[in-house]
Amino acid sequence: MKIVAIHEATLPIGSAMRNASIAFDQMTASALVIRTDQTIGGEALVGLAFDSIGRYGKGGLLRERFIPRLMAAAPSDLLDEHGHIDPARCVAVLMRGEKQGGHGERPGAVGLLDAALWDLRAKQMGLPLWQCLRESTGHMGTSATAPSTATTIETARAHTTAAATTAPPRIATYASCGHFTDNPNPQALRDEVAQCLAWGYTTVKIKLSGRDAKLDAQRIASALSAGLPASHLAVDLNGQWQAGDADGLAVLAEHPLAWVEEPTPALDYAALAAFCQSHSGPVATGENLFSVDDATNLLRYGGLRPQQDRLQMDISLSYGVGEYRAMLERAQAMGWSPQAFWAHAGHLFAAHVVAAFGLGSHESAPDPSRLYGGFWDGVPVVDGHLHVPAHPGVGFEHKANLMAAFDQLP
Amino acid sequence: MKIVAIHEATLPIGSAMRNASIAFDQMTASALVIRTDQTIGGEALVGLAFDSIGRYGKGGLLRERFIPRLMAAAPSDLLDEHGHIDPARCVAVLMRGEKQGGHGERPGAVGLLDAALWDLRAKQMGLPLWQCLRESTGHMGTSATAPSTATTIETARAHTTAAATTAPPRIATYASCGHFTDNPNPQALRDEVAQCLAWGYTTVKIKLSGRDAKLDAQRIASALSAGLPASHLAVDLNGQWQAGDADGLAVLAEHPLAWVEEPTPALDYAALAAFCQSHSGPVATGENLFSVDDATNLLRYGGLRPQQDRLQMDISLSYGVGEYRAMLERAQAMGWSPQAFWAHAGHLFAAHVVAAFGLGSHESAPDPSRLYGGFWDGVPVVDGHLHVPAHPGVGFEHKANLMAAFDQLP
Repeated sequence: MKIVAIHEATLPIGSAMRNASIAFDQMTASALVIRTDQTIGGEALVGLAFDSIGRYGKGGLLRERFIPRLMAAAPSDLLDEHGHIDPARCVAVLMRGEKQGGHGERPGAVGLLDAALWDLRAKQMGLPLWQCLRESTGHMGTSATAPSTATTIETARAHTTAAATTAPPRIATYASCGHFTDNPNPQALRDEVAQCLAWGYTTVKIKLSGRDAKLDAQRIASALSAGLPASHLAVDLNGQWQAGDADGLAVLAEHPLAWVEEPTPALDYAALAAFCQSHSGPVATGENLFSVDDATNLLRYGGLRPQQDRLQMDISLSYGVGEYRAMLERAQAMGWSPQAFWAHAGHLFAAHVVAAFGLGSHESAPDPSRLYGGFWDGVPVVDGHLHVPAHPGVGFEHKANLMAAFDQLP
Repeated sequence: MKIVAIHEATLPIGSAMRNASIAFDQMTASALVIRTDQTIGGEALVGLAFDSIGRYGKGGLLRERFIPRLMAAAPSDLLDEHGHIDPARCVAVLMRGEKQGGHGERPGAVGLLDAALWDLRAKQMGLPLWQCLRESTGHMGTSATAPSTATTIETARAHTTAAATTAPPRIATYASCGHFTDNPNPQALRDEVAQCLAWGYTTVKIKLSGRDAKLDAQRIASALSAGLPASHLAVDLNGQWQAGDADGLAVLAEHPLAWVEEPTPALDYAALAAFCQSHSGPVATGENLFSVDDATNLLRYGGLRPQQDRLQMDISLSYGVGEYRAMLERAQAMGWSPQAFWAHAGHLFAAHVVAAFGLGSHESAPDPSRLYGGFWDGVPVVDGHLHVPAHPGVGFEHKANLMAAFDQLP
């Protein structure tokens, strides 16, 4: 198999909403397709990926550095010994000539390609991605030390027949909503949370200001008035809590919230540790750390508590599966369970990773009319869970509005 | 004054050399020009910037996000009350809609624009950049808490006449050379160091493997044979020292070296602290940390010693002067002197910042035939120091080979 072309486009996904830190009106995301010289079942064999959101599309970096490196590599350098595309080997090619440190946009560009390579590999193997991931890298807790994805394939193949009869895995998900908009009516926030409950979600996250305790108390009350228990309502401060803000702490402690998200700036581990000292409930953070080295610093210095707190690093914004897997293993060595990993928005791709590695939950943008919202068409959320379908690969082909975007690529 | 266009080009600057971590054969850098509707002394008023090196050109990010944001801003949002371009206000515009954390490529794109904006501002004010910087932001140790660059301008203007008669400042510099090449002859390394001494440098840095103690001992011996004292030879490990490598430590302790650079991975502060525990001589690091938050973590957790160690954050790869100034102030609050800041390669621009803020030294790629090498034409290095000339702005116009590259921009 040979990669013959990689096409990408930057798509506008902006909407008139804000969190406590930024506005999303100009937000973009990348869609990417890897084309090959093969067909499978009469269809062209392609690998697809769609960006995680919040950090803008990756077009420039993809075109300038990463796509050319992959296209310049000898095809055999990208495959395992069975002729399947090997994402781990591909990422090694992508990172040639890259200095250490500085994990910002680069991890997202590499992670997007990694996601498309995994879709491609799973389709080659005729497996849903979650199953391909397990068989390629081992379950969590088993040895997965090999530098190449391929080394556990023989074992995997021996399991394939049995595994193919495995029921689709059921994973937990939660709805992220309640951004700031130009509509100041508290009823709007309640309606948005109620809509999430109607869609089948049981845990819902809303945005707070992190600065205005009175406003934040009102927002929590509005959300709770939709009818979910406080233990199923999470609040996101987007890094805005200020050291010593006792009023803010009191609002956060008034209800037994599901978790408080990103109370302090992403890299200020001392501020996070101070918050954790001051707030006894669950804390979740990590979506703005994009490497195993950054995640390790969070665990070393951030004062988080493995028995109750949650780690939200984003898979595709963090170089992809290999680096994310390294985070899981590093965390496990420091006393954390994979159940503590609640992956940041990565949508259909992330849902497979949650299923493959037994992570705690998956973040969903609940509105299926958005390119990055909801799940595969016809796959409902029931009691805050869903079954990951058995389509080969990620199954982008089974979310019509997103597939329409892919169909516009060359 | 109005910005009418911003043009940039990605230039190949590759050469057949390597450090212990990456090869530079495919390396690129960005050249950028900001064009205005003004002339000054009959010449078009422009702001110029040339990339720092090692992290590739910034073209995609500049075109996709940052140039459009600056061009879309109201011209008055970019100026101070005297009609001078205000880099601090411009950077605030550039960062609209950018999430916190993830300091990788973005800081370099913003920093490149910041550098060109400072060149433009200094030319508007008819000052060499070092003087413009001092007058716009205050000397280190004076209050510089204002969000806008302009707030100290009135004071600055009162000083301008006196300051204009100030002799050009003299700054320290050192030569960075001794990369790995395909020439295994130890004589080649000695010749390279000798060439630096002949050019007038007195402190020279060479690359080591960080992994092969025998090779590294040979390289140190080769460099010393060029005739410089060990206290003026620095060695760069590019993050490759391995915990527990006693042979490597012994080689580094055999001579009283000027400093050991980046012994451990950029973000592994625990490994750095362990190295500092094991090596009593000066250590220098920081070139792969691109924000005040990352730099703060280095100072909090890295085990560095303010009285002897050196901080090498790169100005233009770290969002530019405003963020770098914040690093200086944060470090000062933690017991560090500006003299401990030895700015990573930023060439002509960085030399002005070293002069403006009284930093310890400036890193030079010594070969003036390179776009990023040497200094202004006709400005010699004497006894490891040079006088920053009085040309308005950075003075790119006085380095002919680099100016030829700018002249190819639209």
